[in-house]
Amino acid sequence: MADLYTTHAETLNKALAAIASREYWSPYPESPRAYGDDAGPAGDAAFEARLGKPFEIDQPHDGYVDVAEVSPYGIALDVRYPASGVDELVEVAVTAMKDWGRGSPQTRAGVCLEILDRLSGQSFEMGRAVMQTTGQAFLMAFQAGGPHALDRALEAVAYAYAEQTRTPSRMTWEKPQGKRDPLVIEKEWIVRPRGVAITIGVSTFPTWNGYPGIFASLATGNAVIVKPHPTTILPFAIFVETARSVIAEAGFDPNLVTLAVDIPGAPITKDLVMRPEVGMVDYTGGSSFGTWLEENVHHALVFTEKAGVNSVILDSAEDLKGVFRNLSVSMTMYSGQMCTTPQNLYVPRDGVRVGDEIVSFDDVVAGFAGAIGGLLGDDARAVEILGAIKSPEIAARVGEAAATGDVLLESRTVAHESFPGADVRTPVVVKVDGADRDAYMREMFGPVIYVGATASTAQSLELATDSALTMGAITWLVYTTDDDVMEEAIDAAVTGGVSVAFNLTGGLFVNQSAAFSDFHVTGASPAGNASLTDPAFVAGRFRVIGVRKG
Amino acid sequence: MADLYTTHAETLNKALAAIASREYWSPYPESPRAYGDDAGPAGDAAFEARLGKPFEIDQPHDGYVDVAEVSPYGIALDVRYPASGVDELVEVAVTAMKDWGRGSPQTRAGVCLEILDRLSGQSFEMGRAVMQTTGQAFLMAFQAGGPHALDRALEAVAYAYAEQTRTPSRMTWEKPQGKRDPLVIEKEWIVRPRGVAITIGVSTFPTWNGYPGIFASLATGNAVIVKPHPTTILPFAIFVETARSVIAEAGFDPNLVTLAVDIPGAPITKDLVMRPEVGMVDYTGGSSFGTWLEENVHHALVFTEKAGVNSVILDSAEDLKGVFRNLSVSMTMYSGQMCTTPQNLYVPRDGVRVGDEIVSFDDVVAGFAGAIGGLLGDDARAVEILGAIKSPEIAARVGEAAATGDVLLESRTVAHESFPGADVRTPVVVKVDGADRDAYMREMFGPVIYVGATASTAQSLELATDSALTMGAITWLVYTTDDDVMEEAIDAAVTGGVSVAFNLTGGLFVNQSAAFSDFHVTGASPAGNASLTDPAFVAGRFRVIGVRKG
Repeated sequence: MADLYTTHAETLNKALAAIASREYWSPYPESPRAYGDDAGPAGDAAFEARLGKPFEIDQPHDGYVDVAEVSPYGIALDVRYPASGVDELVEVAVTAMKDWGRGSPQTRAGVCLEILDRLSGQSFEMGRAVMQTTGQAFLMAFQAGGPHALDRALEAVAYAYAEQTRTPSRMTWEKPQGKRDPLVIEKEWIVRPRGVAITIGVSTFPTWNGYPGIFASLATGNAVIVKPHPTTILPFAIFVETARSVIAEAGFDPNLVTLAVDIPGAPITKDLVMRPEVGMVDYTGGSSFGTWLEENVHHALVFTEKAGVNSVILDSAEDLKGVFRNLSVSMTMYSGQMCTTPQNLYVPRDGVRVGDEIVSFDDVVAGFAGAIGGLLGDDARAVEILGAIKSPEIAARVGEAAATGDVLLESRTVAHESFPGADVRTPVVVKVDGADRDAYMREMFGPVIYVGATASTAQSLELATDSALTMGAITWLVYTTDDDVMEEAIDAAVTGGVSVAFNLTGGLFVNQSAAFSDFHVTGASPAGNASLTDPAFVAGRFRVIGVRKG
Repeated sequence: MADLYTTHAETLNKALAAIASREYWSPYPESPRAYGDDAGPAGDAAFEARLGKPFEIDQPHDGYVDVAEVSPYGIALDVRYPASGVDELVEVAVTAMKDWGRGSPQTRAGVCLEILDRLSGQSFEMGRAVMQTTGQAFLMAFQAGGPHALDRALEAVAYAYAEQTRTPSRMTWEKPQGKRDPLVIEKEWIVRPRGVAITIGVSTFPTWNGYPGIFASLATGNAVIVKPHPTTILPFAIFVETARSVIAEAGFDPNLVTLAVDIPGAPITKDLVMRPEVGMVDYTGGSSFGTWLEENVHHALVFTEKAGVNSVILDSAEDLKGVFRNLSVSMTMYSGQMCTTPQNLYVPRDGVRVGDEIVSFDDVVAGFAGAIGGLLGDDARAVEILGAIKSPEIAARVGEAAATGDVLLESRTVAHESFPGADVRTPVVVKVDGADRDAYMREMFGPVIYVGATASTAQSLELATDSALTMGAITWLVYTTDDDVMEEAIDAAVTGGVSVAFNLTGGLFVNQSAAFSDFHVTGASPAGNASLTDPAFVAGRFRVIGVRKG
């Protein structure tokens, strides 16, 4: 096998430049067209070939598990996965880590980039797998599950490489001693892995949220056990298969990356993470288990991305139609099943200044609801925006939300031409009194939008801050033409520990976080203790052993 | 006040270069002579002027506390310190952090470097304060308490500055959109502090171990509450006074740095660290409280340096006299009251190869004990090496150790001409069977040296690894002329998570860890979860808030 570091050095160097400049860059095309005409059908066929049979991985296992993975689009998946015990997975991970941990940062980066390259060639298959397990529409599943996830992975590899190589691996140290000879010591620093890494996958964006931790750990010498969400397994199984095959070709033990599958009634995650060999836990998912990890796993680093309540603060605008156009997409795409979806829209009861006019609260609300109704009025277009509802628990929130306020726009079920079994529905839009916190200040992950009437923009900011501090938040979106309000909003965002966007009316949506540029999650609110990907996310995954020779 | 960043930019830039190259560098002279003839007497006078009265600090307080601070040299200290409540210290810290947290990394670095400059001017006073509270001999107290501690502080400021400025604070992001206009977004990133930092001081090297965390936190925008060890307070009181005065002159709230003093019967540390406003805890001290912090403080980052058992592995040497000369100093300086002091010396029962000869175990042991006896035979020289015993608990270990093996060299009390009340004693050297773990494999911080007879160097390495993995270790020192043994020792050190030095026979001692070059503690053994100072020690002390403007 060619020297993989040399093969991929140019890409790695560009990634290193991008994490420093934060400029737009991506080596993995986000347009399906860029992959050629055959890629789509080939990816479909590869995906179809996975269904209805065991997913074979040559890791230690005893038969296969029947899992709880069900397609939100209603197709039959019936994939079974290797049944591997926690003990044996940890044991083979520790063994595999020995050689890998002694490898150079260059060697490891080369292998990681080769894995990403191979995965990029599978982006259509991965897109189908993500679509059919998460309920995303295909384009989102392709982009977020494929190229955008690979971007985030490469970003993590770049940080890992930068951190491991920022000090020399050896040098001669000379300390002057006045008139006497200097003290001369040969010094060497050896990077060693921290321990076995456990990645606990989320049900909605498994690869996008999972790859950063997986690749940060791998690139710094650790073995990784991937524990997918019990209802979203296939995307990670494909990743594990590809990773193992590249690792083996490169001459390392493929058990460096394994898959640990469980079912809702018999969870294995606590057993896995409490093993003393574990050095890192990367988690994306609900707040309650994330908080359990933060409070109970003391022997390993714990990186969490949990839930939050995201807010839009509407103060003033130049172009209200542009506001509604942007919001109607960002608040409805994938039926609000993104950790970055804005849930609560705060509007002052006295209306919104637009140019020289004040548009009344009722007109603003009618315009907003109308924009959503219009966007989602056509079934064929709606299904491409909404995707399908991932679970019955999420679907049930529509009714719960409607019970606590005035329904401005009813949810309606949408027929999906290609997938008659898909659960597709438009979000319910509910008007509440901003001061009535109990009515809406809670996470309603899914197709639920609250419009909160407030006394003023100051109160809107106060409520948004309050919910960020108590429940966490990942995104804020503020519309204002007033510089003072902008400054106040930035101050509030800094206090709340949440990133903030202003006046998005065009093709960029607040939900989107660009690898190499935007830090996803600040780590400064209850929405998560880590950021994807910053130096703090990577620097502790290895330790440095100093060697001095007199 | 002049722009402090500009004033100190050259020093900061040199520090930034040093943390990258790891070459020897220090801006604070370690030789007392470099400070001029008047500096010593002036420092003595400043120290004397502190004694027998309240130490006034203008932080919120209600009177002064009678503390348990006693000089190991037997002089009367009788310093009382401000009595401040946990609630009020946390409250004023949060308030002070507001403006400071909004300052630029440049501004904060400038203020930090000015504090270090002022402290450098106080190195004689600080040396006396460290000497009389810790029991160190003056030269060590001067160097480790003054310039070497300032080096470590500056190193932390440099890392903090580098981490905060490694990505741009603002830029224009453009994403191409094929034939359409690119997406253009103005981006800004705001550094915000994580929260109030608590530094929990150690009794032996308060400033050397405490400054890195204090300055890493300050330089990243946090407020710091310093909680000294109840028996070693004065050095930190001097630091707090100086820091507050520079901070106030620079136009910030001096309550950014406060002193929280307690007494053994009424500890306040748990109350302090459990406050939700706390973002970081830096701890140096015994393992039991360090582990409590690691297991119970979930809302803040916890950086610990705890205890360990350090080992010397004697395999072979070119110059056995050089070995004994070096070991007799490193194993006895400051009476073994350093976290880096080697405690256990492993020697193969079959002897040690020196050139072409094998020197028998008995001859090796006799030579080693003889070197210690010789070095410490003269009282005047002995007191400058040994310093004084910090506490009766430490002194008691001499008797405990003697009870579990064969005493090769008795401990003797040494008279101190200048301080008749000082408790000075030479270490006891005890021979044990290496296989008899119970006899010696435990931390005996203080004047206790074990010589363990082993079956082979392989067994020596195995025992040293075992004790690193179970009890932690900060230093290993290996003497060998055999390249294979050296490789095996490096492998074992990587496994044990401990830094290793080879064949030190000259003027460098394994106890010494050079700022800007050596990473103190690996963070990979039970001896501590952090390293002074590496990027992982700094990167999480602030968070970044992204701002995007459409």
